[in-house]
Amino acid sequence: MTFSYDGSNFYGYQRQCGKRTIQGCIEDVLTKINSNNCVSISSSGRTDAGVHAINQRATFDMSREYNLDKLRNSINKMIDDDIFVKNIKIVDNSFHARFSAKGKKYIYIINTGEYNPIERKYVYQYCNSLDFDLMEKGLKLLIGEHNFKSFVKGYNDNYVRTIYDACIVRDKLYSDKYIISFTGNGFMRYMVRNMVGLIIEVGARKRKLSDILHILDMEDRRFSGITAPSCGLYLYDVFY
Amino acid sequence: MTFSYDGSNFYGYQRQCGKRTIQGCIEDVLTKINSNNCVSISSSGRTDAGVHAINQRATFDMSREYNLDKLRNSINKMIDDDIFVKNIKIVDNSFHARFSAKGKKYIYIINTGEYNPIERKYVYQYCNSLDFDLMEKGLKLLIGEHNFKSFVKGYNDNYVRTIYDACIVRDKLYSDKYIISFTGNGFMRYMVRNMVGLIIEVGARKRKLSDILHILDMEDRRFSGITAPSCGLYLYDVFY
Repeated sequence: MTFSYDGSNFYGYQRQCGKRTIQGCIEDVLTKINSNNCVSISSSGRTDAGVHAINQRATFDMSREYNLDKLRNSINKMIDDDIFVKNIKIVDNSFHARFSAKGKKYIYIINTGEYNPIERKYVYQYCNSLDFDLMEKGLKLLIGEHNFKSFVKGYNDNYVRTIYDACIVRDKLYSDKYIISFTGNGFMRYMVRNMVGLIIEVGARKRKLSDILHILDMEDRRFSGITAPSCGLYLYDVFY
Repeated sequence: MTFSYDGSNFYGYQRQCGKRTIQGCIEDVLTKINSNNCVSISSSGRTDAGVHAINQRATFDMSREYNLDKLRNSINKMIDDDIFVKNIKIVDNSFHARFSAKGKKYIYIINTGEYNPIERKYVYQYCNSLDFDLMEKGLKLLIGEHNFKSFVKGYNDNYVRTIYDACIVRDKLYSDKYIISFTGNGFMRYMVRNMVGLIIEVGARKRKLSDILHILDMEDRRFSGITAPSCGLYLYDVFY
């Protein structure tokens, strides 16, 4: 299943007792459709509270076969309007939305122009100017295989990941708006937001480009600086 | 004062007892800043529940002189984040945001592409294709001085208004998204949404182009058809 959501009004992706979460809303609807036989979904990974998704992926089992278009339409009719199922495909039993994923792409939107109340939950409003060239150079330093421990919240067995591409573009209509994107083989908790936070500090000339390499080398979260807010972050795609 | 707002979470513009409205929120903040001496604002006109504004205008009096940048910043700090004051200027006592207005521009956004949960409160999601050329031709028929009684909710003394321009463009990035704009010397309640509703019916081939002229001639609301939902509508600018 490929689906999109507006993360603003959820306590994050993962099911939590008594809280409105994306996983919870989808599982509740699928369970109803499945004649109240419990359905669990496995996604490509969690997103934190306030983070959006353009193409999130999840796998699940149902008790019987369904016409996939009808199933998709039934879910969209029953689910709240901040989640939308784009399409559903039958996959092999060996396929898992998370473990079969070869990579992911995230985008992060920063607005340094005039505040727009309509976008307040969908971009990070940054009230100073940023140096585009410095940010672009900084992002290039993050490309490649690195130990990203300095950028991660919580504990992992292995902090080594590969970033295939990291780039920044100006919005085509509003030149004060920047879109940063990261494509990599995997991203740990807060990793994108902490990388974006550092790139913003570089763009604001609070950090030097050389700090980026130093921070990667330190393998210690205390060095990397601010965590960019969740509202600017979008899970853009998952690759299999 | 020029200000923008996200109309999604308001019971419309106009102050109403016990309800969250745009006028109410702004007046409450201005009154606080004005040492709790009541401040009333006069806007260029009301917007209905769910309608957004890019450049709404209002005039008000304060008990003393303020540094206008500081006043603007104080309001923006104190007010909820779905309203934003862009700038404040001193005007002549004879100036009135509504009565001095020479014209207004509204835009209306329709998405006929894939539903995007992030935009659900900011565009009208229309699930069938629309004929761009028919809509463009239909809009041209609305340009000029007409009696718009067929498009208005409620009673007015005079239903004659002049539309200087009415056009439609495709979004530069998403060709399934249309932006309709109207510039005119005045718009009555529901007038834009009823005109958009008719133009959508023309684009969907449910009405003929010639029906537009007929409906204008009838001067009767019962003939004009659907009212497009408020979420797609933006007060774009007011001209003085």
